[in-house]
Formats: sequence, C-alpha cells, structure tokens
Amino acid sequence: MKLMQLYASMKSDLQAIEDEMAATVTSDLPILSETSLHLLKAGGKRMRPVFVLLAGKFGSYSLNTLKKVAVPLELIHMATLVHDDVIDDADTRRGQLTVKSKWDNRIAMFTGDYIYAKALTVVTDLEKPRIHQILSGSIVQVCIGEMEQIRDFFNVGQSVRNYLKRIRRKTALLIAISCQLGAIATDAPVRISNALYRFGYNVGMAFQITDDLLDLCGSEKAIGKPPGSDLRQGNITLPVLYALQEQAIRERLLGEIESIKASDGRSDSSAAVKLVRSSKGIKDAEQMAERYIAKALRALEPLPNIPAKRNLADIARFVAKRSY
Amino acid sequence: MKLMQLYASMKSDLQAIEDEMAATVTSDLPILSETSLHLLKAGGKRMRPVFVLLAGKFGSYSLNTLKKVAVPLELIHMATLVHDDVIDDADTRRGQLTVKSKWDNRIAMFTGDYIYAKALTVVTDLEKPRIHQILSGSIVQVCIGEMEQIRDFFNVGQSVRNYLKRIRRKTALLIAISCQLGAIATDAPVRISNALYRFGYNVGMAFQITDDLLDLCGSEKAIGKPPGSDLRQGNITLPVLYALQEQAIRERLLGEIESIKASDGRSDSSAAVKLVRSSKGIKDAEQMAERYIAKALRALEPLPNIPAKRNLADIARFVAKRSY
Repeated sequence: MKLMQLYASMKSDLQAIEDEMAATVTSDLPILSETSLHLLKAGGKRMRPVFVLLAGKFGSYSLNTLKKVAVPLELIHMATLVHDDVIDDADTRRGQLTVKSKWDNRIAMFTGDYIYAKALTVVTDLEKPRIHQILSGSIVQVCIGEMEQIRDFFNVGQSVRNYLKRIRRKTALLIAISCQLGAIATDAPVRISNALYRFGYNVGMAFQITDDLLDLCGSEKAIGKPPGSDLRQGNITLPVLYALQEQAIRERLLGEIESIKASDGRSDSSAAVKLVRSSKGIKDAEQMAERYIAKALRALEPLPNIPAKRNLADIARFVAKRSY
Repeated sequence: MKLMQLYASMKSDLQAIEDEMAATVTSDLPILSETSLHLLKAGGKRMRPVFVLLAGKFGSYSLNTLKKVAVPLELIHMATLVHDDVIDDADTRRGQLTVKSKWDNRIAMFTGDYIYAKALTVVTDLEKPRIHQILSGSIVQVCIGEMEQIRDFFNVGQSVRNYLKRIRRKTALLIAISCQLGAIATDAPVRISNALYRFGYNVGMAFQITDDLLDLCGSEKAIGKPPGSDLRQGNITLPVLYALQEQAIRERLLGEIESIKASDGRSDSSAAVKLVRSSKGIKDAEQMAERYIAKALRALEPLPNIPAKRNLADIARFVAKRSY
C-alpha cells in the first residue's frame, strides 16, 4: 500500500485528531489561539498521530481513547518546534513564517509553554497513571536532548555515539512512545506495546538521520528552508561527523565550520555543504539509517499479522527513502 | 505565632521538600543540574510548599504524599520565573544573577522547559487523576496569564478588573491550588479543600498586589532589584492604575510612562515611581490587598480549629503587612 493510500484510509480519524488539536489550543485569549492555530495550519506529516492510531489497532481500537494520546504527543512535538525556532532564530519552517518571526521571541516562548500545558490537560482525561508517567518522563528526555544540542553546537570533536544519544532524546523517543502509548491506551498486551516501542525508536532514529541528510542534500523547495541550516547554527550531524573522519576532507571542512562559527552563523554554509556532499559521509549516514530501518522491521516480526503491521512496515521503508 | 517560629516548626518537613526538589532537578547533563540548582540555591519563601504542608494537616498528613504535590508546585513556580526573566530581560532576581544572565536566553528557556517537565514527573507518582487535572489546568492558566501580561504591557487604558484577572492567573491560582491539593492529596473532605482553595486564592491576590506595591515603594536592598522595574518593562500594576484615576497626576504620569515606552525601557522610571508614590494609588492598592486578606480569613472560618488554621491566618495577616 502506498503511503498516500494509507493516509487516505486513515483520513477521517486523522481529521478528528486535527479537530481535537485545534479545539485544544483554542483559548479565550485571541493571541494564543492565533499563534497556536498558525502552527497547526502549517501542517506537517502528523507522524505521531499516525503511529498512535496504527498501534491502537493491536488493542481494542477506540478513536476517543487514542485521541487523548495522539493529540498531546503531536502538540508536545509542536511546542518543541516553537521553542526550537526561538533558539535557532529560524524565520521559516515548512515554508511558513515561524511564530518568533511573525510575532516575537517572548510570544513564541509562552506559546510553546501554553501548548505544552494544554497537551498535558488532554492526557489527564485518561485515568491510566502509566501513560502519564511515560509521557512526562519523555518530555524530560526531550528537554535534555534540546539542551545537549546547544551544548554540542560547533563541537567537531563529538563522537558518533554522542550524536546518536542526542537524536534518541530529541526525536526517537517521542516516536517510540507514540507507538507504545497507542498500544497501552487500547489495552494491548505488554509484549506488543514493547515491540511497538522498539519499532518506533528505530524508525525515529532513521527518521532523524534522514532529516539531517535532507538538510545537507535537499533543495530549498523540498525542505522548506535553505539547505545547510544545521551547519549554520552549529548543529553537527551524522554525515558531517563521518565526513570529518575522511583525511582528504577533514582540514578543509574544519576550516569552513570554524569560519561559520566565527561569523556567528551569518556566513554561508554552502562550501561546507559541498564538502560533505562530496564525502563518503552521505553514504555512511544513509547506511546507518537503513540499519535502523532493518531493526525497526525486525521489531515488527513477532506482532500479529493485521493490516496495521504492514502499514507500519510501509512507513518504515518510506522513511529511509525520503528523496533529496 | 510569629512567622519565623512557624518556619522553624516546619523546618524538617520543608528541608525534606528542599532535598526532593534538588534530587528532582539533578540531571546527568551537568549544565541542567547547574542552572536548576543555581535557581534552587537562590532560595525563596517556599510559600507553595508551606501552604501544601499546612493544608495537609486537615487530612491524613503524610509528608511522603505531600512532597509529591509541594515539589511540583514550587518547581512549576520556579520554571515560570526562569521564563519570566527571559521576557523581562532581568539580570538579577532575589539579588542573584538570573539564569539568562549567568548563561543565556536559550539555556534559560530549556532550563524552564526541563523544570516544568521534571515537576510533572513527580506528580505522576500520585495515582489521583484529579490532582493531575487540577495541576495541568492551572499551568495552562498561568501561561495565559503570562501572555496577558505581555499583551497588556504599557496599556494605560486597561481596567482594574483586567489587572485583577491577570494576577489571578499569574499568581493567585497556583497558591490557591497549593492549598487545595494539599487537602486533596491527604483525603480531606471536599468542603475543606474548597475552603482552602478560596483561602489560597485570596491570599494569592493580596500577595501579588503587595508585591506590586513593593516594586514601587520598596528599597533596592529590600526587594533585591531596582524599584520601578515593573514600570520599566511596561507592567502597569494596581497602584499605577489607581494613580492614573487621579486628575492632578494623570497627565504627568501618562507622559512619564510614554517616555519609558519610547525609550524601550532603558529610561529611568524614578519620576513615574515618585508620582505614583505621591498619589492615592498606594493607599487604594493597600486597601484592596487588605480586602482580599479579610476574605481569605473568612474562608478559613468553617475549618476545624487545629493549629494549622491559626498558622494559615498568621501567614495571611503577614502577607498584607510586608514592609517597604
């Protein structure tokens, strides 16, 4: 089944989640509704809701219950993006003006806080303490991941392991628990929710690596922002770390990164991007992403053969093949 | 009983809460521990824990249970302060360097996010969904209050009602639920937790009004920051609103506020502060604070006559009398 068909088949449930997200962030304070709905309208793949819904097929599927998990997960992801944009000083995301650019940093910060808080009110409707524990514990990890990212800006001496640890917190965890909580919320057996967690974790890792590849190899049109943004802000990603291991490239690349750093991110990163593209870093990072996808597919194996299992596998395969 | 004696009598329980707060924010990421512990060490009145503990005396007092309420409430308050300091561009708080000044705005933002998230993990140990609901709902209101404050910066046309609505969200609510949740966590009857909510709400309103008075009438030494800070950042408080109602003062005060606004908060607010001090705005605001204290004391009346009732009354009376 193609991905578009999958989305089409889930359309009405995804729309219900979209409506619930809009209702959740609508406030009696117009500015908060405006900023929050601006974010919602910018769209996105709604990956977390898709995973929650598919995971819910392994238990007693109930849209009403799954909504209470999918909405907070996607809102928490959105709140992180708003705060990220403040940090990254990003003017556009997904081709749309960011909240910090359309309004200002203060408003972006409190919009993020507000969306976080609203997300949590939704999940309190579910009287399953385990879900609250997993969710709040994961937000802590996401925050630590964000802080690690700041710490590691322009750190060209960091290890691949360090990079992987950071994206685990920053991205993979929230996708892992999307799968896990969809199963827990619908009372699927623990071995199933655990397998889905492993699936989500591995897909999430592959997804972030591919995202980082896109930032280097994608066109501005395809990725909705100028390529090389990561390098400009000092975010040293996997392909760059691999490129730095290449003797013929290392010194020149270090020089380029140093000059970006010295210019406070104002200088052009295209020379650095070109160097990384010419290195084996791209291929190596692609292979790493593929290994994670293979692990994700293996995690699915013990699950019952229902259509959702095939859907999850299709998504995993797609993640590794996002084009640039 | 004097307030110092009350703190002394609660010392070991408050210390247990202090230790739990420190343990909660300690992270395997050194920078997060440093920023969070820096905030903790700056101290504070720990008003929310005090209220939680005293409210717990009306139920089956258990320090272990009450900790799980007091720690998140105080941490949420701290997280708000860190984000406030980013917005206010404040360099000191309680006489100490702020996180945004000692580190930077990005680090302050994620420290706040991290502390929020950690606070919520603590409360998930309590398997009482009602507590989660009240807590997360209140954080939403606090965020709305913060945003209202930004919206209302330099708005000299705002009503007293508008001001009261804003401080209700920004301050009073968290104090109200400190009292309420202390009672709920220890299984006190609903009429008691409701009465304690009303008590806390009214004390909280009086507290914020007094705080706003202090910013105008206190010495730099007493308040740990230069007086007139609120006006400099455009925060129009109750005494100022009342002063603006005074014909003899109105035009000059409007002129001063206008010039602070035009200077982007860099100009001196001492002329404006002097005008407000010379107006009836101080007296009027004091009377408003006293009315809230009177209401707080009335809310206590139906409660059983245990020592905690007298302690709460003492605190309420003290709040109205903070000197400047």
